[in-house]
Amino acid sequence: MSEKIRVIQYGLGPIGSGVACHVVERTGLELVGGVDIDPAKVGHDVGDVIGLGRDLGFPVTKTLGEILDRTGADVVIHTTRSYFDLFKDQILEILAAGLDVVSTSEELSFPWSDHAGEAQEIDAAARAAGKTVLGTGVNPGFLMDALPLFLTAICQQVERIEVTRIMNASLRRGPFQAKIGSGMTVEAFEAKMAEGRMGHVGLPESIGMLFDTLGHTLVDYQSAVEPVVAERLVETDFFQVQPGQVRGLKQVARAYDEAGEFVTLTFIAALDSAEDGDTIKIIGKPSLEVKLQGTNGDLATVAIAVNAVRRVHEAAPGLVTMRDLPIVTYG
Amino acid sequence: MSEKIRVIQYGLGPIGSGVACHVVERTGLELVGGVDIDPAKVGHDVGDVIGLGRDLGFPVTKTLGEILDRTGADVVIHTTRSYFDLFKDQILEILAAGLDVVSTSEELSFPWSDHAGEAQEIDAAARAAGKTVLGTGVNPGFLMDALPLFLTAICQQVERIEVTRIMNASLRRGPFQAKIGSGMTVEAFEAKMAEGRMGHVGLPESIGMLFDTLGHTLVDYQSAVEPVVAERLVETDFFQVQPGQVRGLKQVARAYDEAGEFVTLTFIAALDSAEDGDTIKIIGKPSLEVKLQGTNGDLATVAIAVNAVRRVHEAAPGLVTMRDLPIVTYG
Repeated sequence: MSEKIRVIQYGLGPIGSGVACHVVERTGLELVGGVDIDPAKVGHDVGDVIGLGRDLGFPVTKTLGEILDRTGADVVIHTTRSYFDLFKDQILEILAAGLDVVSTSEELSFPWSDHAGEAQEIDAAARAAGKTVLGTGVNPGFLMDALPLFLTAICQQVERIEVTRIMNASLRRGPFQAKIGSGMTVEAFEAKMAEGRMGHVGLPESIGMLFDTLGHTLVDYQSAVEPVVAERLVETDFFQVQPGQVRGLKQVARAYDEAGEFVTLTFIAALDSAEDGDTIKIIGKPSLEVKLQGTNGDLATVAIAVNAVRRVHEAAPGLVTMRDLPIVTYG
Repeated sequence: MSEKIRVIQYGLGPIGSGVACHVVERTGLELVGGVDIDPAKVGHDVGDVIGLGRDLGFPVTKTLGEILDRTGADVVIHTTRSYFDLFKDQILEILAAGLDVVSTSEELSFPWSDHAGEAQEIDAAARAAGKTVLGTGVNPGFLMDALPLFLTAICQQVERIEVTRIMNASLRRGPFQAKIGSGMTVEAFEAKMAEGRMGHVGLPESIGMLFDTLGHTLVDYQSAVEPVVAERLVETDFFQVQPGQVRGLKQVARAYDEAGEFVTLTFIAALDSAEDGDTIKIIGKPSLEVKLQGTNGDLATVAIAVNAVRRVHEAAPGLVTMRDLPIVTYG
């Protein structure tokens, strides 16, 4: 193992705190700073804020610059916002500071289809800085895109791809249960849905990576979100859902090329779900069916962000995606 | 899609013929030659020899040089022998001719552990030629090594890896059924086993890739092959197996680091097997269980060899393995 890679954690919410704690655990990495804009966190010891159980000897700062005045660093793990208009300047700021970036921002996982202009801007900034930017995560970034793509390695033909992810949200943290609409009335759910504020972020990015890599042209894309309604009382540590109220959501994205529906991605997250697991089907020659158990969203997202650090640090400069790097592995 | 990559097929047995037919099908590739030492094949039209159903207008030649006198080429797909002492000179010959190599030779899939000297020799020759060499296949090269490694991307800890591949050999071609001992007496099987001539080739290579990539040190390796005995009459298109005779084999490889057994690979191939599929278990945080159906050995090996062509042609010079390249995908 080469020398330790110095990591700054940018964003200290639940995922960012989990990432930071895990960076501290890893022998090949060293956590050297933590950034967050929350006034309740700024100035407090990073170890305290991330729930490490001990102090690390440096405080959360509001800016990256305050950390770099104190120490050098190599890679920033960025876990703040999902959408380009909210995170783009942060990525450019990190590149301007001369650091590599691993980000869990969903729209960065494959920006070349829906955000080509912003992607080119970040790619140019990364090349100018001689640094690398990767968007990753368990989904998008792995389960519905990079992993199905790797499975097509053993196919002579690929006619269709279907990925279904079913999550029993009763096993997840409270904010996740809230995000999927738990305890809402159907009316409230549908009103929020109409504002485009319900549902998993990242399906267009997964579809973009699949289509672009396999050489298909996207001619139509449809995505629908519907509530999953409780038929009986459902209780968790965080919610009590009455019959007739919402216990989660089902989202289906269908993507078409000239020949018809080529990719179908289904995302179901609901309290009290009897099923919990993922299925990847490649219809082709041969046809494959792959069932995965245990791909816990939070643990997995923290893991893949941290596991990507060394690959990104070693990669050639530019904006890359999970299909461009040598396979990311533990370590 | 960039211009067509010109491919020579080296070795025209069942797998090589399947590869060559599939290269002809692919729009991005062009089959420009076929090499085989079999006097019954040399001089005959390659299309005829590979069972394409039409002539291609060029004959099978005994040497690579005869093809290169006629045409330029880019990549050789090499499907001849499993062992370094039988294939090494062929790889060096291809590199000396200035061509990239995709090989299904099992010992080439991860030669850095058990054949480090030969690996260095091929790596040096590849760099000198400015060309790339990859050993790949569905197993070794994917199911028991590269794919489990990619799955560890979503793990914060990896304590153990277990991969089990169960093949219903009744669904496979005659030579495969013969290779696993179908119709032999138990005594004959054990005699051949004692000569080291029974069993799947490639388990040490898969283990080498897993250990090396995950930073573990191999301190002990045990592999045992045992016959699977028919309890009732088993018939296929190629064999009639009486009760008490062998209908296949079970092979288990156990690999240990200082802490204990870290990897267990189980390979079962038997006629009339009720099960047919693969299971990958990663015991860690989170623990994952992944079940695969449809990873047909012959179709999959042909596919991955052909799918790797473009990646290898674009890769930096040297000897690489499936863990070093960007993910291989269809196309």
